[in-house]
Parts: sequence; structure tokens; C-alpha cells
Amino acid sequence: MITPQLTQLAYRLGTINQFKTNEVGQNRFVYSPTWIDAQKQLIKWGLELRFQVNVDDFGTTYLDIPGTTEPKNVIATGSHIDTVAQGGKYDGLYGVLGGLQSIENLVAAFGQPKKTLRLISFSEEEGSRFPDTFTGSKHYTGQPVDLNMQDPAGIHFDDARKSAIANLMLPGTNHELPQLPATFTELHIEQGPRLINQGLQIGLVTAIVGQRRYTVTVKGIANHAGTTPMNDRADALQQAVDLILALRNAAHQLKPDLTFTVGEMHISPNTSNVVPGLVTFTIDCRNNDEAVLDRFEHIIHQIVETPAAAKISSSVNRWAKSNVTHLDDQLAQNNQLLADQLGLKSVQLASGAGHDSQIMAKVTRTTMIFVPSINGISHAPEENTSQADLLRGVELLSASLHQQAY
Amino acid sequence: MITPQLTQLAYRLGTINQFKTNEVGQNRFVYSPTWIDAQKQLIKWGLELRFQVNVDDFGTTYLDIPGTTEPKNVIATGSHIDTVAQGGKYDGLYGVLGGLQSIENLVAAFGQPKKTLRLISFSEEEGSRFPDTFTGSKHYTGQPVDLNMQDPAGIHFDDARKSAIANLMLPGTNHELPQLPATFTELHIEQGPRLINQGLQIGLVTAIVGQRRYTVTVKGIANHAGTTPMNDRADALQQAVDLILALRNAAHQLKPDLTFTVGEMHISPNTSNVVPGLVTFTIDCRNNDEAVLDRFEHIIHQIVETPAAAKISSSVNRWAKSNVTHLDDQLAQNNQLLADQLGLKSVQLASGAGHDSQIMAKVTRTTMIFVPSINGISHAPEENTSQADLLRGVELLSASLHQQAY
Repeated sequence: MITPQLTQLAYRLGTINQFKTNEVGQNRFVYSPTWIDAQKQLIKWGLELRFQVNVDDFGTTYLDIPGTTEPKNVIATGSHIDTVAQGGKYDGLYGVLGGLQSIENLVAAFGQPKKTLRLISFSEEEGSRFPDTFTGSKHYTGQPVDLNMQDPAGIHFDDARKSAIANLMLPGTNHELPQLPATFTELHIEQGPRLINQGLQIGLVTAIVGQRRYTVTVKGIANHAGTTPMNDRADALQQAVDLILALRNAAHQLKPDLTFTVGEMHISPNTSNVVPGLVTFTIDCRNNDEAVLDRFEHIIHQIVETPAAAKISSSVNRWAKSNVTHLDDQLAQNNQLLADQLGLKSVQLASGAGHDSQIMAKVTRTTMIFVPSINGISHAPEENTSQADLLRGVELLSASLHQQAY
Repeated sequence: MITPQLTQLAYRLGTINQFKTNEVGQNRFVYSPTWIDAQKQLIKWGLELRFQVNVDDFGTTYLDIPGTTEPKNVIATGSHIDTVAQGGKYDGLYGVLGGLQSIENLVAAFGQPKKTLRLISFSEEEGSRFPDTFTGSKHYTGQPVDLNMQDPAGIHFDDARKSAIANLMLPGTNHELPQLPATFTELHIEQGPRLINQGLQIGLVTAIVGQRRYTVTVKGIANHAGTTPMNDRADALQQAVDLILALRNAAHQLKPDLTFTVGEMHISPNTSNVVPGLVTFTIDCRNNDEAVLDRFEHIIHQIVETPAAAKISSSVNRWAKSNVTHLDDQLAQNNQLLADQLGLKSVQLASGAGHDSQIMAKVTRTTMIFVPSINGISHAPEENTSQADLLRGVELLSASLHQQAY
């Protein structure tokens, strides 16, 4: 039984989270000054603790404790170091520093492992600077990433990448892309309220939901709010309201756990005394059953494309799709048994958010461990997890890595 | 029977509408360079035609043909010279130049009138530069106007007013506020589709609708679109959709000609993958029956303030109100008889838009004459009226002024 050093974890979380911009919350955009400070600090800790440190071409950092008898058999853990805009203190970073803590504890208690233990700090997952997500894990697993994409300031990904990585090449650091691991375990905050609401301490992730995003465009005719009779309007906003209601009801009827979100809406001309002539709104829908998402896509087209009032037309465009990812059943099962042994109340669940694990799962056996999020809040400065729950996650991860690597 | 000189009206409309900014459409904001050019051009035409020209402290311009036997009995016509942003070529301006044409024609045909004929070009009606409307007619009729209000660039109304008016004091121009007229007739485009849809040529305005504007605020909790279960959301946008639908249905049930417009809507944070935490939307409602507006205001409060889902609250705030204005029945009746004599198909109707006439009606007998708007479009560059219909309006106005002043 390992006793994680809570104060050290809290100290390290605090150290990284103090690399701040002038913005509210955490703003560690990939390759930005705060990101460089954070990844460099992690490398320094790794070198101090005598990990073998590798940095790849994208700035993803790998801290290895080589195995004694099976050094090429790698048991990996980790997450990403970047954040969303005005993000919280735990998303991504907890999986990186919790993984570091677990490996440090294991080596201190049991010495060098038989298999290599690896902590991975992926360069980027959130898509908060460039118009792509998971670029760290995509690069590691051999998926293509467009080096020419630009951030809002017009800076090319490739230029930002090169100048940032030059800062990470401290003495003792290797520049290479390591081989893929045999397993990958990602420790993460849940980002939702299920664990906290049910009084549970651990979530064992069996799948990451598939998600699709659409934009619906409703075209009517802008006109004077006073002089246009009600029966002679082509009001794009009222039609949008009807569509959103019909879509929401259809989603609920299809499957109650199909998430349906209209998060973004634009009204034109958006003036109180003009009947709206053009409205667009987004649909974000997610589920762990791909067939449900297929069926709902069909329903979206039916509802949106059914002709409504005269002079109004609606259309829908899907602009993002990621399929359901099934994680490794055996690893989740093993972790649930370990949680039981540690007296931790756990549940198997699907993740409603995307994670590096969905990229890693394409190339290796992958699992995730969730800890509770207070009030279910994430991607916001209010994102929080109790110190006790942070500790429990590290405790279970340590047990899992021990079981696999020793 | 007067034959209006169409080509001269078209020439004058074209001359004023050529005083343009770089923006789309007409942008004659009060006291701006295009507004100065327009009002100055009108003064020049007035001086050439030997009108007595007065300019008051707000820049409203009065062109008088003094009466022979009853010079203090003033029969006035006119409208405003300013426009909305990206406005059309006829709103306001047609009433000014159509009035000029009518008086010019009458004097040419019949000589000096018994009563004084007055053309008024109000300085401002649209509220497109400063946060108040009808400031021209308000000043003329003795209503207070805040001289300290500022435009978006921080320029004070009083400073803009003074420097603009200095440009209007051409030789032969008097600076004074004339006495109020005995009657006021405003010629205007309908700005709606009723005349054109019914194949009519003239609208005789019996009332100007009362209007009220509200903002509804819906507060929920912003949260992750993937990790927040559907039954644990406080989605401000879905609640706003429910409210808009309930309000729309209630408005229709209360009175089908009660106009109900949600023209402006703001969603926060307005990101596709975040459940909206805050939504505001406006309500613009108008009717010619004040009791209907009172009743609907009560219903709005009932619907908005009824507690809905947990963790969601809604409130409503009224920020604008103007009461129903009843115009002069006798003047409208006289004009309808004149229209019949001229063979013009007419109808009595209420105006869904506000006009200077609602201010003038507080102090003098007031009526309006509408001509058809093609496709009912106004406050837009596409605003249009056929040359034949522009001519018919001037024809009826001339007959009405002749009946009253000769």
C-alpha cells in the first residue's frame, strides 16, 4: 500500500498553475510562454528525480524509469499540459503530475520496475490555440497534423512549435520520439457531476463518447418589427425556436442519455426592432452508441429540411465527427478490483468529453481513471476536486502501475 | 386638379440621396456632414422658391409661404431629414420633398394661399445617432430633450447641434422657433406590405401603435456539453426557447394583430461545446389598443417569472414604452373623400412604426398619408416605392393642403 505524498502533489500543481497570463483562470495555450514554463518545470523535476527525459518534435515530454528485465515493455501514464482559455487547475495537469507522483512513489517504495514506467506530458489536447485538437497524441501515434495551420494571430503551428521546443532542450534531455507503450492509463478529473452526485470516488472509463457537431442555418427575411403583420413574416428566429424545440424533443425520445446542446447562436441583424432575417445555431450531440448518433443525424436532417413557412428555408451542415472509442475492458476490470481492495467506491462509465486516451486507444491498450469534480464544473476557473479525491486517484493509479510493471 | 412635377421630385430625391458616406445605403445621421449637406440643400431650394426660411435651435427647418388673409393660421406638412444606419431613400425624405413639391405646385397654380403653408424638415426622428428619438419634433412642441446625451464617439448632442446649425445660417435665413401650426399632415411611405398586398394606393392613418420593449434575462449555469447529463443541466438557452414559444403563443391568442418580435438575442458564453449559462432576448410588441398592451405586459411577467427548472431563473425589464396615438379623424375622413375624388384606392389603417406625427398630435390636429412600399421593405437600401405611387401621394397631399389653406 502506497501513501502518496499529497503535499508534494499540491505543491507541484500550485507551481505550474502559478505560470499565469493576465487572463482569468489558466491559459496554457500550446507553445505559449506559460506552456513553455510548465513543460520546462516538469522536465526539471524529471531530471532531478533521475528519469530519462525525451522531448519529441511536438514538445510532448516523456519521463522514463527504465525496466530492469523488460525495458522495451513500456507501461505509460499521463495526460496533457495545455488548457482551454480561462481554464481550471486540474484538467490535463492532474493526470501529468498525478502520474509523476505515482511513479516517484513506486520507485521510492519498490525500486526500479521490471517493465519501463513512462510519464507522458502531451503537448496539446484542447484545440484552444490552433484549429486542431489532440495534436500531441496524434503526433506520437503517427496521425497526420497540418503544420501550416495558424493561430488567431496568424502564427504558423510549425514556427510556434520550433521556437517553443528550443526552450525545452535542457542538458540531459534527449530529442526523440519514443516507441509506443504496451498500455496507457490516463488519470483525469471527471468534468461532470456523476461521481460527486452518487458519492463515488473513482470512475473507470469504458468508452469515450462519439460526438458530432452541426450548424443549422435558417434564412428568412429581415423586416420592420412594427409594420410587418404577423401573418406576413419570415421570422428566422421564431423558426429556429421551433426547430430547437423539435430537435430537443426528438433527442430525448430517441435516448435520454444522448446529450443535445445548442451552445452557439447568431442572429442577424440582432436589433430589437427588426424581425430577424438570418439565424444560425450549433448542435453538439454525444453518445456512447454510434448507432444512436447515426439515427439522430437522420432525424436532424428530417426536422431541419422539412419545409416550414413560406419564404423560410433551413439547412444543416455537419462540421465535426469523432466516433465512439471503446477502451480496454480488461484494464478497467483490473482497476475496479484494485479500487475495491483499496476501499474506494467506483463505477464504470463512459466519458462525455474527448481525451488523449481516444487517440492512444487506436494503437495500444488504454484505460482512464476519473476522480470527482466538485459541482461537475470544468473548463472554468471554478474547476475543483477535493485534496482527498486527488489523493485517491493517485493511490489507484499507483496500484495499477505497480500491478503492471513490477 | 394639380399635376405634380414628377421629374423634379425625382431629381430632388436623387440630389439629397447623393450626399453619401462610404457606408451601404443612406446614413444621414443628425448633425453629420451628409445631414448638413441635405438640410442646406433644402434651404437653398426654399430660398430660390422665395419661401420664408426659419431654422430653429435644433436645426429643424421651416419653409413658409405666408397666407394673405390668415397668415397666423398655419397649415403644415413635412417629415424628417435624417435616416437610420444603412437606411433607404424615402423614409422621412419623401415627406419633406413631397411636401415641398406640393406647396410649390399649389403656389404655381393658385398663387399665395389665404392661410400660411409651411413645410417642416425635422432635424431628427430615427434615434440613429443619439439615444433619443423625435428630438426635432419634441423641440418644436416644447418637450424636453437632454442636451448632454452623447453619441457612440462621445460627442455631446449640444456640441454637435451648435456646430451643425452654424452651417445652415445662409443669407436670407431666420433663426427662430415658429409658432405651432393649426394642422400637420405627414406624407410617408408605409414601410409595410398592407397597401401593396391589397393593391391600394393610399393609406390614411388613424392611429400610431403603442409600443413597448422589454429585455428578458435567463440565468442558468454554463457547463460542459459532453460531461453534463441532460437531467442535470441548467441550460439558459433551452429555457429561453421555451419562454419565447410560450410568449409567441400567448400574443397570438390575445390578439392576432398584436405584433410580437424577438429581434435581439445574446448567448453566453456562445460556444458550441458549452451549455449556455446566460441568455438575454428582447421583446418588441405593438398594438393600436393600449389595453391589449397592458394585458400582454401582465402575461409577459406571468410567463417569465413562473419558476421553471431548478437552478434557472428568469426576469423581465421594460425599457421603452410609447402609448397609442390617435390621429385626427376629421382630417383622415377629408383626405379619404379627396382620394375618392382623385380616383385613388385608399384604406384607413394604423401605423406600426413611430412617426413625428405622434409628437405633433399632442399639440395640433394631425394626420398622415401613406404610399405603398414595394415588398413592404423599409429601413434598408432596398426600400422602394414606384414613381407612380410617389406621385399619387403628392397629388393627394396637394389636394388636402389646397382644401385647408385656400
